[in-house]
Amino acid sequence: MNTFGRNLRLTTFGESHGKAMGGILEGMPGGVKIDMDVILRETARRRPGQSHLVTARNEKDMPEILSGLTDDMVTLGTPIGFIVRNTDQRSDDYGEMAELYRPNHADFTYDMRYGLHEVRGGGRASARETLNWVIGGAFARQLPCMKDVAIHARIVSIGGVEGSDEALHAIVEEAMKRGDSVGGVVECTIEGVPAGIGNPVFGKLHARLAQAMMGINAAKGFEYGDGFAAASMYGTEQADIFTSKEGHIITKTNHSGGIQGGISNGMPIVFRVAFKPTPTLLRDIETVDKKGNHRILKGKGRHDPCVALRAVPVVEAMAALVIADEILRHNA
Amino acid sequence: MNTFGRNLRLTTFGESHGKAMGGILEGMPGGVKIDMDVILRETARRRPGQSHLVTARNEKDMPEILSGLTDDMVTLGTPIGFIVRNTDQRSDDYGEMAELYRPNHADFTYDMRYGLHEVRGGGRASARETLNWVIGGAFARQLPCMKDVAIHARIVSIGGVEGSDEALHAIVEEAMKRGDSVGGVVECTIEGVPAGIGNPVFGKLHARLAQAMMGINAAKGFEYGDGFAAASMYGTEQADIFTSKEGHIITKTNHSGGIQGGISNGMPIVFRVAFKPTPTLLRDIETVDKKGNHRILKGKGRHDPCVALRAVPVVEAMAALVIADEILRHNA
Amino acid sequence: MNTFGRNLRLTTFGESHGKAMGGILEGMPGGVKIDMDVILRETARRRPGQSHLVTARNEKDMPEILSGLTDDMVTLGTPIGFIVRNTDQRSDDYGEMAELYRPNHADFTYDMRYGLHEVRGGGRASARETLNWVIGGAFARQLPCMKDVAIHARIVSIGGVEGSDEALHAIVEEAMKRGDSVGGVVECTIEGVPAGIGNPVFGKLHARLAQAMMGINAAKGFEYGDGFAAASMYGTEQADIFTSKEGHIITKTNHSGGIQGGISNGMPIVFRVAFKPTPTLLRDIETVDKKGNHRILKGKGRHDPCVALRAVPVVEAMAALVIADEILRHNA
Amino acid sequence: MNTFGRNLRLTTFGESHGKAMGGILEGMPGGVKIDMDVILRETARRRPGQSHLVTARNEKDMPEILSGLTDDMVTLGTPIGFIVRNTDQRSDDYGEMAELYRPNHADFTYDMRYGLHEVRGGGRASARETLNWVIGGAFARQLPCMKDVAIHARIVSIGGVEGSDEALHAIVEEAMKRGDSVGGVVECTIEGVPAGIGNPVFGKLHARLAQAMMGINAAKGFEYGDGFAAASMYGTEQADIFTSKEGHIITKTNHSGGIQGGISNGMPIVFRVAFKPTPTLLRDIETVDKKGNHRILKGKGRHDPCVALRAVPVVEAMAALVIADEILRHNA
Repeated sequence: MNTFGRNLRLTTFGESHGKAMGGILEGMPGGVKIDMDVILRETARRRPGQSHLVTARNEKDMPEILSGLTDDMVTLGTPIGFIVRNTDQRSDDYGEMAELYRPNHADFTYDMRYGLHEVRGGGRASARETLNWVIGGAFARQLPCMKDVAIHARIVSIGGVEGSDEALHAIVEEAMKRGDSVGGVVECTIEGVPAGIGNPVFGKLHARLAQAMMGINAAKGFEYGDGFAAASMYGTEQADIFTSKEGHIITKTNHSGGIQGGISNGMPIVFRVAFKPTPTLLRDIETVDKKGNHRILKGKGRHDPCVALRAVPVVEAMAALVIADEILRHNA
Repeated sequence: MNTFGRNLRLTTFGESHGKAMGGILEGMPGGVKIDMDVILRETARRRPGQSHLVTARNEKDMPEILSGLTDDMVTLGTPIGFIVRNTDQRSDDYGEMAELYRPNHADFTYDMRYGLHEVRGGGRASARETLNWVIGGAFARQLPCMKDVAIHARIVSIGGVEGSDEALHAIVEEAMKRGDSVGGVVECTIEGVPAGIGNPVFGKLHARLAQAMMGINAAKGFEYGDGFAAASMYGTEQADIFTSKEGHIITKTNHSGGIQGGISNGMPIVFRVAFKPTPTLLRDIETVDKKGNHRILKGKGRHDPCVALRAVPVVEAMAALVIADEILRHNA
Repeated sequence: MNTFGRNLRLTTFGESHGKAMGGILEGMPGGVKIDMDVILRETARRRPGQSHLVTARNEKDMPEILSGLTDDMVTLGTPIGFIVRNTDQRSDDYGEMAELYRPNHADFTYDMRYGLHEVRGGGRASARETLNWVIGGAFARQLPCMKDVAIHARIVSIGGVEGSDEALHAIVEEAMKRGDSVGGVVECTIEGVPAGIGNPVFGKLHARLAQAMMGINAAKGFEYGDGFAAASMYGTEQADIFTSKEGHIITKTNHSGGIQGGISNGMPIVFRVAFKPTPTLLRDIETVDKKGNHRILKGKGRHDPCVALRAVPVVEAMAALVIADEILRHNA
Repeated sequence: MNTFGRNLRLTTFGESHGKAMGGILEGMPGGVKIDMDVILRETARRRPGQSHLVTARNEKDMPEILSGLTDDMVTLGTPIGFIVRNTDQRSDDYGEMAELYRPNHADFTYDMRYGLHEVRGGGRASARETLNWVIGGAFARQLPCMKDVAIHARIVSIGGVEGSDEALHAIVEEAMKRGDSVGGVVECTIEGVPAGIGNPVFGKLHARLAQAMMGINAAKGFEYGDGFAAASMYGTEQADIFTSKEGHIITKTNHSGGIQGGISNGMPIVFRVAFKPTPTLLRDIETVDKKGNHRILKGKGRHDPCVALRAVPVVEAMAALVIADEILRHNA
């Protein structure tokens, strides 16, 4: 449950209010030179308060690598243990707040799963967990077998609007001013994956990507290639006709999103992930307490009005973990 | 790769042109009375040539249960081995056809994965594999812990059109007449799942459902609750306000689709799966052969113009396997 | 629990009094020509009533291969499903016998695990399950990567006596006449395993062999190389001095039994497995019934006086599954 | 490969010359009060230079718990991340030494597995890894379900001699003086395990214990109950006759070592592990270098003349991990 992957396996730990986040990455072959700047760049991209318009500061969320690397930052082929200290460890205000179920948060469901009035497991719901994933993904990207693979995610719409970065940013700012939040769609393109990566039956490449992406906080939907639009089309509109180009077989179009029968066909892999608006609002909102009494939850505290923005590097990291895992299997 | 699930584990085998399909279902507790009619009903629903408008004939695809049951059809708690003979074992016409890559089929990608000019693995791409899944799901539905769980999938749109069964059927028939095929969306509702089912981090309930559904042949997208529409909404439009009803905490709305933070909240679980049009067309279509030469693929043979129709019982079966797996874990 | 192996995975089912035993073998690469005679020879070797002195009859326990092979018996790279019908399906005499706990059998412990007065799980304790293992092993031996690997197990002592086949057989016959049974030690030598096979930490090659062998019915001990004798030795007596021979590094002695640090060193792998005497005796024996009342269990029925004899092909089969699994991983 | 267990899962990392050892323990239920003194006591027991005759100093090898516990040392039900800094990080003398293969060490086999002239993986062969296991075991012992389980391991023979602690110590000291090392046997008794713990088929309780124990550095053999002696016995000598005592069914003798058919019968579980002499000797010894040239390896450095002594707490820790894992499964 805390492990992702098969050949490249990431096992994680950490509560946002505990001492540290961290993980163990198994399956990295030996002899790979690791660039810590890549790891710092990726962790900086996902930091709260950042957006793609703001220069990342990288003095925080500094991962410490505890094993698996030589002093020269070359992998040994042994598991890579890493930790990131939580600098902001003050406990949540467990007064009134702790008694109320925040709408669309996991408070209620965690109570149902782990037992009422206990904090069991709850700490793993925090989006801070995705820091571990981003670190794992930053290692995965540096594998030699990933050298020709380019993974790029970007926001394609916010609040249903497609447009320039500036237009989208204006929507977010306007929502923030109203104490509201807004959803968005992230599209990810993976170029350079050779044909033949993936599996039949239960391990289809797009099924693994779907599971990985739907695990990201606030994800509500996944589609690849034509996705939901394909369900509105006729077969004749959707056929990716094969042709030859410089001795390679390619398709003229890419309705398939680079995957056919669960296996990559060499075309760019394209998928989209829908993220709901952040459930935390800076407004008073109706709810119930743990006994079912109606109460008002005050809007206060920090506020991240569009999680889709912060999800971009997490989508890339999970994509990197899936693709690297499958390429390692394929090369084996 | 041929195993699905953790506490309730289905491992399958079988090529459509081999002797038999089959599987091993582990994790069924002992003492459960199994109704073979449920299994026969479900396998009949997914048979080729059937639709929801046509009375199912159940004289074919008869599973034989080889272990795990007493003569009185009571589970022993041991693995349930089952097989279904393939009656139609004639090999594909491996003449010209075998040299051509059918667009949007797995021919090309399997060649890339398993090696050119070999048949390795190819046989597992057949939709006949889902027969094993339907049998597994039909057992899962009969678990005592699934007694109050009602799983119901249905077509909600075909070719982008929502409407009555008759209207949708007309679209399919019209496509079939033209030798074309058409996509569709299946919606599945699961009622009666108690709150607290699922996991944080990598094992979120909706992530497992996504993986399961995206493994079904021709699936292109998955969403739950408001799904992709949530990405176009503001947080204030999307909050599921908690309230009390007869001593239970419920939500007034169900934007969340019954799952919050990866764990069920007791409301109906609702998700949708997008299926692309069948890639097989009864028309001549451009393609290449294995050497990359341009060729014409003749449209011929049997033709299933809308796989979404046949996917309905498969969606239900996979949902049953996921939910039963998680409820078994929860009860443990 | 019903799956063994990682790269080469065998999942099994079957109760001795059910319709069939069977399994699914995953991980066999495509293109391997399978010789059914090897499979029949191995299943014949483990049949009840056989011994190494008796010519095997191969008209029974005929496995049927249901998938994963072409008509020409070439592997497809897909899972191999197989079954063996149980011809002798009459139920045990569930009269008085069913109420008594047989000493050293699993009757009592299964009741404790699966619940009193139920038959849950009990059917999986039968040594007939090893038929599935022998079939799996017979496939594993035919892998191309196993071509140079020779696995040979033999009885080295019975009742504490080492000697010729005839001498050992005499001990068994004498025990049988008295209605008694007798233990034995099986030694297995695996030649041709290249250096470098195995893993550090939890997956050491000898640890995997130990688990595999201790899973065989009636196994009580496992040792490799000098084994328990090493615990009585000084370091100077036990050092395997390296030397060169024809460009290869070998050791002058083989105290290590071919494995150092959990990884093969290219020398023959040698291990021994201790088997206790069959618990079934043809004598009256004290016991209790399920309520704890003292009773006499009558000695009757068929009787296999030395399970170590029948374990020989099972030891080889499990060794083949472990070694093939590890070589497949290594080659990958 | 770096993960042990199913319901209680320990995943570890760390090279002895890296920054830290560490691990992630998953499956600890929430609400368990942890006593750090138990953890410190166990890590002190396994420290180099300690023996059972010497008072343990506990100022070193101090584990830091990074997640999974409240400030009051109560488990949250989330994964427990822990690390132990390596204070002695100076690299081995990689001069002449690095070119020579030490007899009975893993130098040669690791080179064969991970590639000549590289250090890949080698760091995981160190016995320091067992520090992670001891920490995991110290948590496992504190589970509520382990309250009545008493695990006690002790040396039963050294150099083939059984005797008092003093007599055994004298053998070790005498070997040390000669620059030699000596083997030993550890016996472990586990009392308080209820009947019904374990599994049939591939997950037999003694098979899991065997795998766990054979993973400990220098282990050469495993036996339970009568073990290898059972192979020299007749069935009539070995029958554990059932009787009733205070309403419980017990056996008059314990030839079975507390396990029948892979499942505990409520009697004490008894097993023994044979450890070879430490391969490091304080004597000059013949060997070859990586090119196969004959060379002399000088005896020097620290020297642990009897690893069996240090293995005692490791045997207990691995036993605790196996038993806790199986009891957790059983209670579920």
